[in-house]
Amino acid sequence: MHKGGKVAMVPRVRLRSVQDLRKIYTPGVAEVCRHIVDHPESVRKYSSIGNTVCIATNGSAVLGLGNIGVWAGMPVMEGKSVIVSTMAGASCVPILIDSDDPGYIVDVLAGVAKTFSLIMIEDIAAPLCFRIEEALQNRVGIPVFHDDQHGTATVVLSALLRILKLTRRKKEDVRIAINGAGAAGIAVARMLLEYGFRHMVLCDKAGALYPGRAEDMNPYKQEIAGMTNEEKERGALSDILRHKDVFIGLSGPNLVRAEMVKNMNKKPVVLALANPVPEIRPDEALKAGASIALDGKVINNALAFPGIIRGTLDTRAPRITYSMKFKAAETIASLAKGNAVVPDFMNRSLHKKVARAVARAASVR
Amino acid sequence: MHKGGKVAMVPRVRLRSVQDLRKIYTPGVAEVCRHIVDHPESVRKYSSIGNTVCIATNGSAVLGLGNIGVWAGMPVMEGKSVIVSTMAGASCVPILIDSDDPGYIVDVLAGVAKTFSLIMIEDIAAPLCFRIEEALQNRVGIPVFHDDQHGTATVVLSALLRILKLTRRKKEDVRIAINGAGAAGIAVARMLLEYGFRHMVLCDKAGALYPGRAEDMNPYKQEIAGMTNEEKERGALSDILRHKDVFIGLSGPNLVRAEMVKNMNKKPVVLALANPVPEIRPDEALKAGASIALDGKVINNALAFPGIIRGTLDTRAPRITYSMKFKAAETIASLAKGNAVVPDFMNRSLHKKVARAVARAASVR
Repeated sequence: MHKGGKVAMVPRVRLRSVQDLRKIYTPGVAEVCRHIVDHPESVRKYSSIGNTVCIATNGSAVLGLGNIGVWAGMPVMEGKSVIVSTMAGASCVPILIDSDDPGYIVDVLAGVAKTFSLIMIEDIAAPLCFRIEEALQNRVGIPVFHDDQHGTATVVLSALLRILKLTRRKKEDVRIAINGAGAAGIAVARMLLEYGFRHMVLCDKAGALYPGRAEDMNPYKQEIAGMTNEEKERGALSDILRHKDVFIGLSGPNLVRAEMVKNMNKKPVVLALANPVPEIRPDEALKAGASIALDGKVINNALAFPGIIRGTLDTRAPRITYSMKFKAAETIASLAKGNAVVPDFMNRSLHKKVARAVARAASVR
Repeated sequence: MHKGGKVAMVPRVRLRSVQDLRKIYTPGVAEVCRHIVDHPESVRKYSSIGNTVCIATNGSAVLGLGNIGVWAGMPVMEGKSVIVSTMAGASCVPILIDSDDPGYIVDVLAGVAKTFSLIMIEDIAAPLCFRIEEALQNRVGIPVFHDDQHGTATVVLSALLRILKLTRRKKEDVRIAINGAGAAGIAVARMLLEYGFRHMVLCDKAGALYPGRAEDMNPYKQEIAGMTNEEKERGALSDILRHKDVFIGLSGPNLVRAEMVKNMNKKPVVLALANPVPEIRPDEALKAGASIALDGKVINNALAFPGIIRGTLDTRAPRITYSMKFKAAETIASLAKGNAVVPDFMNRSLHKKVARAVARAASVR
């Protein structure tokens, strides 16, 4: 399935005669060029730019595989391009930048930005990804979207909204432990806070994040530590999980044992989202007493990003705001049926509805 | 024909079920990623990289339209992508870089180079294009091809080879005037010299180029002035054209009058290649006594670059050498039939034969 690559840039017009050639290329194309000189905004109409997305990586945090480099990251970029094309109808061009220098990565992406209407950054390690996203968004006139942060956060929010409804809990009451203080973990915490969730503790390899922790911190961890963990809990994940209702794993394989689930509050919810191997297998978590247990195969950001991209392109929004992502999450949650936490990814009307909700939110200022 | 753009990045695999998703994307894709970590060269097999070309411009010299900017240049990039895809079967990604700084352009292209197996630079004004091509080729491990130089030079050489045969002249004897000392003019002169042509004078707006000329020079004009014009001719194009057998126009619209053709040697050859409007219309040149007169619609680099690209990709050649381009030119010339100077562009076997000839030349070291 992956041989020869999963995507290709192909013609949308036929080249079957010299007459075609003279329209597509010289001399005929000159007329279109001249029109765009006089009407620069028409480039979105008379070129592919209006429907083209860049998906850029430096290969430093690919899936749960870590810093495997740009080439090994390419199959993931292509996979995402296939999803964006199939579900959102957009042309999605992978771009590999083999560098760990955030300044250089921003320079390169700002340099190619005029080719695209949206830049996704992807599989770039924290905290680099935060700096790159911020700096790039301030430099280019098109939206920058880091799917590992915002796609993941959107789909986690949608899952929680659905779970609150299914289990009749309130967002203000539910106590959450998030394992992983990388791009996804921090973005999920930020979005849940912004949405109105109150009680959450982030953990990483060194245990709970709290203000003033000395070990293994960075400015982004410090900031989120100051906004969460209001009871100043300390200790390892196994300690933090006691008295929590929800576990959200955005970390690595097999970091949660059945015993840890047993020690959580009654009927706990386990979202073990590490890819490709979850923190705990859902069947194990259920056996250990979880009322709901799902992994990244189900709670997948592919539920969110096609619609977010389509809605953003359609409205030419200059940024992707929280309100756009909230509407995406609420729409996804509303489309889950029966006891399901999320709707069927393959249902194209899901992505269309998300796109419309995002577009509406983009138009309200 | 140009609405919505002429190219799109599309899937080469079907995404029709959640099972497909899990192979194309997480978790299945992880296996391919791990394989590439262990065998980096397999990225050409298990991703699109091995068959993907970057076509980059800064929009500073688009066709004969001049510095019209990256957006107005995009329809040309897309047109070229259509040709590369249709005739060479390669995926060709336009990249726009809105800058006049050669250092920055090289930084940006070197930054994205690992995404591609070949970089075409396109429609970048001289002398910037020379510096960019040299610096970029020294920085990346893949071939850099400036089609305005080398594609044009290859197809001009192929036309001259055919014309020599049709008119029974020798390359050592024929006296050539080239108008235009930009990317194409200088590249044509360099290639003709390298191939064994002896007598040529380059002209630009200031007239003939000769060593020591003061007006409107740059290092590249100085260099080529020292290698051509062995009789140290001076004066305007109209003066230089007297006693010349061949005119090659790579300049601008309507710069040659019928009278100037009348003053050339007996049975002159006129290749008026400015795009979209030639230096003189072929019918006018014929009326003024030219034995052969053709414009850029016929002598088009689209005859050369698809085969050059295919042959280079197939052999993973690290650079595109003169011997590869010579074989391309000779192959194109050999395929013209009857009184035709060039073969039919639409004949796909032409491009296949050029590719094979280029590949053979690439393999001989």
